[in-house]
Amino acid sequence: MVKSANTAYAARVPLHQVHIQDEFWSYYINLVRDVVVPYQWDALNDRVNSAEPSGAVRNFKIAAGLEQGDFYGMVFQDSDIAKWLEAVAYLLESKPDPALEDIADGLIDIIAMAQQEDGYLNTYFTIKEPGQRWTNLAECHELYCAGHMIEAGVAYYRATGKRKLLDVVSRFADHIDSVFGTDPGKLAGYDGHQEIELALIKLYQATGNERYLRLGRYFVDQRGQKPSFYAIQLEERGGKTHWPGNVALDLEYSQSHVPVREQDKAIGHAVRLLYMLTGMADVAAETGDDSLFAACRRLWDNIVTRQMYITGGVGSMPQGEAFSFDYDLPNDTVYAETCASIGLIFFAQRMLRISPEAPFADVMERALYNTVVGGMSRDGKHFFYVNPLEVDPKACGGANRKYDHIKPVRQEWFGCACCPPNVARLLASLGEYIYTVHEGTLYTHLYIGGEAQLEVGGGKVKLKQASNYPWDGKIRLEVEPDGAAGSFALALRIPGWCKRASLKLNGSAYPLNDQTVVNGYVRIEREWAAGDVVELDLEMPVQRIYSHPLVRANAGKVALQRGPLVYCLEEADNGANLHEIVLPREAELTAVREEQLLGGVVTVRSEAEKLREEDWTNGLYSPEAVPGTKPHPVKFIPYYAWANRGEGEMTVWVRER
Amino acid sequence: MVKSANTAYAARVPLHQVHIQDEFWSYYINLVRDVVVPYQWDALNDRVNSAEPSGAVRNFKIAAGLEQGDFYGMVFQDSDIAKWLEAVAYLLESKPDPALEDIADGLIDIIAMAQQEDGYLNTYFTIKEPGQRWTNLAECHELYCAGHMIEAGVAYYRATGKRKLLDVVSRFADHIDSVFGTDPGKLAGYDGHQEIELALIKLYQATGNERYLRLGRYFVDQRGQKPSFYAIQLEERGGKTHWPGNVALDLEYSQSHVPVREQDKAIGHAVRLLYMLTGMADVAAETGDDSLFAACRRLWDNIVTRQMYITGGVGSMPQGEAFSFDYDLPNDTVYAETCASIGLIFFAQRMLRISPEAPFADVMERALYNTVVGGMSRDGKHFFYVNPLEVDPKACGGANRKYDHIKPVRQEWFGCACCPPNVARLLASLGEYIYTVHEGTLYTHLYIGGEAQLEVGGGKVKLKQASNYPWDGKIRLEVEPDGAAGSFALALRIPGWCKRASLKLNGSAYPLNDQTVVNGYVRIEREWAAGDVVELDLEMPVQRIYSHPLVRANAGKVALQRGPLVYCLEEADNGANLHEIVLPREAELTAVREEQLLGGVVTVRSEAEKLREEDWTNGLYSPEAVPGTKPHPVKFIPYYAWANRGEGEMTVWVRER
Repeated sequence: MVKSANTAYAARVPLHQVHIQDEFWSYYINLVRDVVVPYQWDALNDRVNSAEPSGAVRNFKIAAGLEQGDFYGMVFQDSDIAKWLEAVAYLLESKPDPALEDIADGLIDIIAMAQQEDGYLNTYFTIKEPGQRWTNLAECHELYCAGHMIEAGVAYYRATGKRKLLDVVSRFADHIDSVFGTDPGKLAGYDGHQEIELALIKLYQATGNERYLRLGRYFVDQRGQKPSFYAIQLEERGGKTHWPGNVALDLEYSQSHVPVREQDKAIGHAVRLLYMLTGMADVAAETGDDSLFAACRRLWDNIVTRQMYITGGVGSMPQGEAFSFDYDLPNDTVYAETCASIGLIFFAQRMLRISPEAPFADVMERALYNTVVGGMSRDGKHFFYVNPLEVDPKACGGANRKYDHIKPVRQEWFGCACCPPNVARLLASLGEYIYTVHEGTLYTHLYIGGEAQLEVGGGKVKLKQASNYPWDGKIRLEVEPDGAAGSFALALRIPGWCKRASLKLNGSAYPLNDQTVVNGYVRIEREWAAGDVVELDLEMPVQRIYSHPLVRANAGKVALQRGPLVYCLEEADNGANLHEIVLPREAELTAVREEQLLGGVVTVRSEAEKLREEDWTNGLYSPEAVPGTKPHPVKFIPYYAWANRGEGEMTVWVRER
Repeated sequence: MVKSANTAYAARVPLHQVHIQDEFWSYYINLVRDVVVPYQWDALNDRVNSAEPSGAVRNFKIAAGLEQGDFYGMVFQDSDIAKWLEAVAYLLESKPDPALEDIADGLIDIIAMAQQEDGYLNTYFTIKEPGQRWTNLAECHELYCAGHMIEAGVAYYRATGKRKLLDVVSRFADHIDSVFGTDPGKLAGYDGHQEIELALIKLYQATGNERYLRLGRYFVDQRGQKPSFYAIQLEERGGKTHWPGNVALDLEYSQSHVPVREQDKAIGHAVRLLYMLTGMADVAAETGDDSLFAACRRLWDNIVTRQMYITGGVGSMPQGEAFSFDYDLPNDTVYAETCASIGLIFFAQRMLRISPEAPFADVMERALYNTVVGGMSRDGKHFFYVNPLEVDPKACGGANRKYDHIKPVRQEWFGCACCPPNVARLLASLGEYIYTVHEGTLYTHLYIGGEAQLEVGGGKVKLKQASNYPWDGKIRLEVEPDGAAGSFALALRIPGWCKRASLKLNGSAYPLNDQTVVNGYVRIEREWAAGDVVELDLEMPVQRIYSHPLVRANAGKVALQRGPLVYCLEEADNGANLHEIVLPREAELTAVREEQLLGGVVTVRSEAEKLREEDWTNGLYSPEAVPGTKPHPVKFIPYYAWANRGEGEMTVWVRER
């Protein structure tokens, strides 16, 4: 396979080379290590009494012959185990933890015992429908679960050097390769929920076995070919479905309506699309497939310029947890699944590894600092699946069943528990997302403090990053090349939100202009010496942000952003009926550091106005206009921190006058 | 049963005494006679190829032993037949039509043959589940269908004097009375969808048999008693349900969570609640039950001051076709079922018959002129089930499945076809809603032209009403008492929307003041003589209407109303992206009569503004505010006339500056 020159694929940065030490992120990463991963292990073992049971570990024990009983949970319950194990692997790769590694090894032993003679591995079909393997790809997530287990196997091998799970998933992948394909006697099918594609590329990268790259590319290429494989299988099953409704016939839902290279609008289930795009970018990069990369770019553009919330949330429609259509971004009926924003980050990372352009990193940062961090509570034990931008608790769940899908406070665990372990594995691997090295250039995409050991221009370099990001935009980088290897370019992202930036190199101003700033990164190409210091100053005023006029839901409204953080109003600070608040365009916006609030945040204060509702005495409708407004001081908090103080209203978009 | 003095129940006005001759309404009534009723007869007989089949007539033929086959359709399919027959009865009561009467007689013969030996009548249970009668009241609509057939039987008897269907439904009611009650051996239950209560009161009124009044009162009183009858039946059925979900356990859905006298907020399925309230008002009036009437008034107030759209639509929530909570009136995700507004009109009529207060008639008028007329197309063959106040066709149905319940254009027929025959029976009986006589006072509630023969103060009077309503507010009434019976009060409603009214009696000004205007009606008490003329002038400027500040969806928005008509913007007149239009508060609003448009309407023109979207070059989000607005002339049409010119956007509420 020949790689084209423009798709040189930047390597993943191993986590043991990136030590994060950052006021904002260390808290979350420690939370994942100390609370989230142990808590989720309890949940997966059904030891959290107040949460919905999982059954996931027990399913593997039953499939392994260690326990008796029935399969419990969703058809994709296995994936929770795999994602948890992947998160554990990232923690171990970052920092040894023998006790945790023992638990993981024990679990891997069970998983290996649950694997069937021929390499097949799936507890649902092994326990519950042993004769029905691969008969319902559209609905039953076998390849999805396989993909997650492959990711876990690769991650665990990279972290520990232990091959047991890698061998298990390699045998499983070999089995899958023997089942699927266009050769006679094989199933010319593909997964109902994309995931296997990106996983197979990881397996290829870890093992060097091109069989897995070919198989991953096959799944990408086969998707959406006519006649529909799902429809064929549905007929072969005599119309039997696993879920209510019939997703096998809803090809747009699973992006199998046309081949992937012909798709140009984000449509269907959001997580499916984003995992698919991640795998497509991987295949494009590893095979130098320009038409595939062009499709990635086209769908990226559609998502981020037409279908993304200001919080980096995507998939605005609860029906099908799906994308809907351009500029349709309602704030209250919203879906914006946490996993979808995680998928967007995966996709952005792959695009950055192919082509370091700041807009990819801008979106990654937006999704990370708003929806993903906001998906988890400060205590690490409660999670959002859906991330609304406007909440009236009266409309959420309860007797009136209005917006059942929206929860005004984070939940302990879910019957469908995809999001919590997804947050855990992303945060545990955050070190992967900060830097990439492209030939002679070291790119810094995210401003996260710590130390990194990287290889660039044929030598090694230590990079120390320190900042108070996202609370202010002053970033200090100390460069320490290893001996003679000091000739390379350092490229630092100037975020899209930043309208004024300045840079000093060893105390002297360094110009930011069209020559030095390329694709949104300021490049400093020189012979680096130990002790060289780069100071980047990203001005971080509070910004009023407006939506494209075609976004119906935000007409006449404004949102606030400061640095990468989107802000919101909460009832806790501003009283109920947030829709009655009007922010005058000329009102001053003041950033205030509050150390004691929500773990320490910068809030934004302003003198807004509020309808004098108490002076309305006209019943439900009246020809007399609403009485005027009264001054109403408001306080905005970062969106990610909402719903940590009980149940109440929240809104990101505020009416402007 | 002793009637209390304050609930003297004004009698229904027979339709043969009210001849409607009115530019606005004659069109619709003739449409019902010439198009709707024949079209629906075809639909009920499965002769409309392009619409969903009904099966309703065939079900009765099968139950009658005249055809072989299976039951087809919803468990409440019989009610479509009953409502159609009721509409036919009203047409016949208004004007003889031997051909139509022949068809109806033939249908009644079949219905009579479908009745079982013991009086039971329901084609679903007779054909499909013969052993399961009365085992699933919560879900299976037996008493609902019974109620509609009783209404048809009463109406047909009143119209034609023919007793056949009246006798059928009386035998059925006797059977129901033998099955239900608190006596040992009886089912202490009640209907899953309220309707039987109001029907039994009609049967009592038509036959004088107090057994039916007692039975109707029993159903009202028994509802919501503990333990839940539905839960008991669910257990007896071993948990078997007829529909997905389990409405038997959702007691608020069917207003059976507490006894009716303890209810104070409108909640649950809207049509159920409004039919229940209609029956409650009937029972309260017929039995002088003040606590029951107080509950009616309390729920009335909650509905019309907290949960009613400006169009008279009610039930804002598609989940459960239900009321949600106070001030929750979203315009786009709305339900506002046509049948619910018809139920609101029934309820208002009963309240008016108990206590003539103009606010009851105001709401009746609002629902009638906006949602109900709007529920049907100008051709009489297409209907809305859901009546949105804001529509973006891109969000309705189609591949993205977003708002499946909202149709941007009226549909031919529905699998659940409750609304079309409901519109037909209401319009065919419109003559019932115009006047009531309370002791010595003749009340005019609606301004609909024509001639009425009424009895008041012990004598007869002919009243001729002429106007160009709702297009202008000049109403002329000619009073012609029959001989000596000229001493009575004529009371004319001053609509709530009218801020300036004047009245002339035989050409001379008649004062409108606190003495002459009582409960919203101007009273003229005198010795009337033939040729007396009353001229009422209701000033009808275009009004800007605002919502209560707690209506979140309408914050910063304005609607236009002129007389009883609510207005809307349509894409056909104003281009796409109606959310970009801003109506300045000071913009002049000009009413323009357009004879050629939509059957002749008054439109409203104004110089509004629209965002200069074409100057936005900033992607999806930007710190640069939207470019300013440009002048954009707009044309509003009456809401009821929307969606008669193809598919497009529509909005009632417009942003105001």
